[in-house]
Amino acid sequence: MKANPFFPEKIKAALKNDPPGMWMPNLPENCIRLSSGYPEPTLVPAEQLKEAVVSLLEEENDLPLHYLGSPKIVKLEENIQNRLASRGIHVKREELLITSGACQAIDLIARVLLDDETFVVVESPTYMEALEIFKNYTHNIISIPVDERGLQTKRLEKLLEERKSKGLALPSFLYTIPTFQNPTGTTMSAERRQHVMELAVKYNFFILEDDAYGELGFDNSPLPLKAIDKEGLVIYVGSLSKTVAPGMRIGWISGASEFISACAWFKKDLNHPFTQATMAVFLDRTNYEERIILLRTTYHDKYIVLISALEQFLPKSVSWFLPKGGYFVWVKVPGVDTSLLLNRALSMGVSFVPGKHFFLNPKEGTEYLRLSFSYANKNDIVKGIKILGKLLK
Amino acid sequence: MKANPFFPEKIKAALKNDPPGMWMPNLPENCIRLSSGYPEPTLVPAEQLKEAVVSLLEEENDLPLHYLGSPKIVKLEENIQNRLASRGIHVKREELLITSGACQAIDLIARVLLDDETFVVVESPTYMEALEIFKNYTHNIISIPVDERGLQTKRLEKLLEERKSKGLALPSFLYTIPTFQNPTGTTMSAERRQHVMELAVKYNFFILEDDAYGELGFDNSPLPLKAIDKEGLVIYVGSLSKTVAPGMRIGWISGASEFISACAWFKKDLNHPFTQATMAVFLDRTNYEERIILLRTTYHDKYIVLISALEQFLPKSVSWFLPKGGYFVWVKVPGVDTSLLLNRALSMGVSFVPGKHFFLNPKEGTEYLRLSFSYANKNDIVKGIKILGKLLK
Repeated sequence: MKANPFFPEKIKAALKNDPPGMWMPNLPENCIRLSSGYPEPTLVPAEQLKEAVVSLLEEENDLPLHYLGSPKIVKLEENIQNRLASRGIHVKREELLITSGACQAIDLIARVLLDDETFVVVESPTYMEALEIFKNYTHNIISIPVDERGLQTKRLEKLLEERKSKGLALPSFLYTIPTFQNPTGTTMSAERRQHVMELAVKYNFFILEDDAYGELGFDNSPLPLKAIDKEGLVIYVGSLSKTVAPGMRIGWISGASEFISACAWFKKDLNHPFTQATMAVFLDRTNYEERIILLRTTYHDKYIVLISALEQFLPKSVSWFLPKGGYFVWVKVPGVDTSLLLNRALSMGVSFVPGKHFFLNPKEGTEYLRLSFSYANKNDIVKGIKILGKLLK
Repeated sequence: MKANPFFPEKIKAALKNDPPGMWMPNLPENCIRLSSGYPEPTLVPAEQLKEAVVSLLEEENDLPLHYLGSPKIVKLEENIQNRLASRGIHVKREELLITSGACQAIDLIARVLLDDETFVVVESPTYMEALEIFKNYTHNIISIPVDERGLQTKRLEKLLEERKSKGLALPSFLYTIPTFQNPTGTTMSAERRQHVMELAVKYNFFILEDDAYGELGFDNSPLPLKAIDKEGLVIYVGSLSKTVAPGMRIGWISGASEFISACAWFKKDLNHPFTQATMAVFLDRTNYEERIILLRTTYHDKYIVLISALEQFLPKSVSWFLPKGGYFVWVKVPGVDTSLLLNRALSMGVSFVPGKHFFLNPKEGTEYLRLSFSYANKNDIVKGIKILGKLLK
């Protein structure tokens, strides 16, 4: 991309970092998408959302089509408050902001908390979109490794101690996906959850908890950090993209009311009355607990299919974490550059995400790849893994 | 609002400037809304949008509910390209970005073009949301007065000459609503349009043209600046909020492809497949020309009602511009502080927007107020103006 003489330096720098939208090549048609973090298509409630729209517009006519929108927007907030309460999170209305998905939520939080002076701690590896967002606001990003029990909080403690003793700035916030992490699928242990909360209090930083996959445990779901947060240091981000439909673009932030006001200030796309009211009607008519159980068992079944295929078709040198929920399996392929592997895989009709995209230092991800079992059907999952196995042998 | 110790200075400053959402008090129930820039309720196509959703989901099932969304998103882009072409603006796909309304569009453009070093020229008075957005990015805002023929381009020329001769920074862009301006309703003359384009070329700045009301001329609509832009200096913002339904949150930016890429980079709410595909189906089934004619005649009728009421019920000292389209009439009430008047008006059941909100220096707006004839019905318009007349006598 040519540098526009009109662009301020910060923009030129941001655009130089990562050319927009260049992190994945276009997928060929009919490609088996083991790359995509999309929900299972048959569980996206198209019919029910259609009925929700019909019912909404028959009841309220043009109301949800204006700026101010419908009283149903409040219903959506109440519904989300109730769901959060069922997970141990009790928030008032002024502590909640509906966003257009989790990605916008993370962007708003970064805008409020980051500038060139402040820094942020991320997990290594972490959600690539969040990494891209943070790079737009600061150069000061530090990553702490994740293992099978989640973020290595002792390493975080060491970092904080060192920085404090040297008189260096402490982080504005830690970004973590403690439950069914993207991309590793790992879950932070109860002990580490306690530890990270203690560190936040001791060193006075926020925790940005991304809980997009939190309800999708195969058996059950651990309590979010927000539920054990006594000091109001956890900013919680949730989403209906993984449990209802990403195309509706509904997520949220929950945090202290003054923090929520600041985020709202920068949210210049305003409320989305039509989709928010539609979602409120849908949720009002849905047995959400039953829906979650269906999602859990469906994804567990597909996960089993993926893992079995990995065991059957991949070389012995290849290894992976065993997630307890979510959408992803994180695979290590020793001695293989997964970016190069992707081109060959695409030509054979299967996609995955190369590990490098999830790391602050892309080289650390060379031998890793992320597989998703959420979107492709079981037959395609097996077919896709067979192809990968063939390529790796 | 308490300053959060976690917030960087830029955020504290922004929040101190204008407490979020505080520019208008809550309106009492059943208030006659002469304040609101909302479309005429009976012309918001609730029934047709409902049919569009039903047809879309029956045809495509879950497709528009995923991230990637439906091929209809491309149809929406094509439809907007065709509409722009009918107004003399020819844009390629990579020169167009669909946004969640014009407000998000302006925010993205400001993010790309402004920082603390750069400055922006606005009209005086101007769209208050745009003013709030610019203040989030820079302190360097200069305003140039508008008269009945729009922006006073000779004053702009003088400013530019002076700054150039003093070696001061030239503006990054000029923000203008040349057609049926918000709040004054005025339209920039052809001569001034030519002049402002010449200035942009000579002094090398962008023009951010906000054309939200451009199609709503009572008789006809002048060509946008973008249509006479030979050098690619006009960044054009449009919206379906005033012509279809604001609750659908659909607007757009058109500009040079590298500029559009930069805006897209910061648009972290992603595409909105469900609403964009729905709008595509709606537009595909709608005779848009007929719709625009209906809007024009309807708003013209309501405008006549408002103007007649102003003539009949307001004191002789009160004056206003006569718009040729759009939603608003800009009223001067000599010797009256319209902020104080608002409280009394609200207690009598009618609202307007005090002039101060539209000015960089709020004091300049003390004697002005903005009336909207778009939303209230004709009886209420007359009733509302009668109340204002009573208060002013």
